[in-house]
Amino acid sequence: MSISEKEAERALTEQVVASFAATPDERLRMLMQSLVRHLHAFVREVEPTEAEWMAAIRFLTETGKMCDDVVRQEFILLSDTLGVSMLVDAINHRYATGATDTTVFGPFYMRGMPERAYGENIALSPGAPALVHGRVLSTDGMPIEGAVLDVWQTAENGMYSGQDTAQPHGNLRGRFRTDAEGRYAITTIVPVSYPIPTDGPVGRMLDATGRHPWRPAHLHFMIDAPQHRKLVTHLFDEADPYLTSDAVFGVKPSLMVAYRERTADHELARRFGFDGPFCEARYDFVLDRN
Amino acid sequence: MSISEKEAERALTEQVVASFAATPDERLRMLMQSLVRHLHAFVREVEPTEAEWMAAIRFLTETGKMCDDVVRQEFILLSDTLGVSMLVDAINHRYATGATDTTVFGPFYMRGMPERAYGENIALSPGAPALVHGRVLSTDGMPIEGAVLDVWQTAENGMYSGQDTAQPHGNLRGRFRTDAEGRYAITTIVPVSYPIPTDGPVGRMLDATGRHPWRPAHLHFMIDAPQHRKLVTHLFDEADPYLTSDAVFGVKPSLMVAYRERTADHELARRFGFDGPFCEARYDFVLDRN
Repeated sequence: MSISEKEAERALTEQVVASFAATPDERLRMLMQSLVRHLHAFVREVEPTEAEWMAAIRFLTETGKMCDDVVRQEFILLSDTLGVSMLVDAINHRYATGATDTTVFGPFYMRGMPERAYGENIALSPGAPALVHGRVLSTDGMPIEGAVLDVWQTAENGMYSGQDTAQPHGNLRGRFRTDAEGRYAITTIVPVSYPIPTDGPVGRMLDATGRHPWRPAHLHFMIDAPQHRKLVTHLFDEADPYLTSDAVFGVKPSLMVAYRERTADHELARRFGFDGPFCEARYDFVLDRN
Repeated sequence: MSISEKEAERALTEQVVASFAATPDERLRMLMQSLVRHLHAFVREVEPTEAEWMAAIRFLTETGKMCDDVVRQEFILLSDTLGVSMLVDAINHRYATGATDTTVFGPFYMRGMPERAYGENIALSPGAPALVHGRVLSTDGMPIEGAVLDVWQTAENGMYSGQDTAQPHGNLRGRFRTDAEGRYAITTIVPVSYPIPTDGPVGRMLDATGRHPWRPAHLHFMIDAPQHRKLVTHLFDEADPYLTSDAVFGVKPSLMVAYRERTADHELARRFGFDGPFCEARYDFVLDRN
């Protein structure tokens, strides 16, 4: 490459950056100009052929087309599998205060799921029975009354209700509310590890790069309480074989729980109505004050 | 941010880069690892809020959904308006050899357009009559016989046939073939400046950043000849007011032509069948040998 060609390529980047100089919103201007510089730096580093660039255009187009308005969000999966979602999460939850760690939201949350009573069973499909319970506390250690725990997990087939339309409405989903002592209790099934959807562009990307699509077993939580910062996190089964190679890089050591085996004569069996063996997981969440 | 938080964020990037280490194809591995580093560097620089990141996800999703299988390719428009298409073009056409400069392909090309005779009129819609003619040469100056010039331009309403389904099939499109002296001649209309489509996410991006969507008037060429490198370029009208602010950064000084006014008694009028005033543009293309 001649010096003048190199200069012309740099001049192009500066011309594009300059084209955003009149952006009225200062934050948007900074975002766009930084995007152009980083995107051009990437292109200049890898020097894509025109065929490679068209393959990228097709990949992004197909990723958009895989998205529906309900539960499939292929661009979130892409962001997740490129570790960007966890990086954005980390950036937005700096300055540790003792609150529970956050992790990826994921694309399978659904609004407006049924309100559940203390200890209510959310599993309308088979699985190993489990009790997940504990408390929601503020960073000063005081229990939070009336915190809403929106929970979701996959069925044993590795699919979420909504994603898998054969499952009953609201299966393995629901909103629990803490009592005066900040307690919550969920009757459910032990979560299973599952592959993220592989029938779209992200699945093809994982396959082409020798990566597996598996996520370690987990239960999703979004916890909302007055005067506190909303918490989006998972609880991972500490026995899962995929904890060290989560396809979306979501695992943090502080978010692992043990699902302990209990027999039908355990005191919790009576209290929560288990008529056979079950597993018990305990976890106390801690929320930051606003 | 604490040192350990900063380290954790860097460690996340390295973990994602490492996840691509087993990619069987070496080129793909390099592309993905470079993408992750640059994407994470961008995210770390701008520190998006979660709402901003979700807005980006929505933007990309809508960009994918705007694409159809015919002529609307919103991701190409995005690549064009961020200057990436021209950068890829520059990278793939280094080492100047005297061949005609290239520019963006754009999203409005259509395959299989009608074969046209020497001087045939491609304009089935109104406009200022024009003759565009010249020769196709090899870098050694020898004329190329049988070069195919695939041409396309917008109608006076600023839309391409296909994009604007009200236009007749093949309007302002066609494939010309050079004669033994390398000559081509196209009867058409003088091109007009036009806005790129603004009814999608890219249009909203331009609007939000204070950028206009206009492209200077041009005629597209894709020229293919045996033993030569395919040439994708435009000819721009040198009188256009948008030459210095092309929305897709495609203008190069070497690609400007004058549309000179000619009267009905000009010798070319008789030869090409103009019965009133018309404009004449002349341009010789030079193709690299393979």
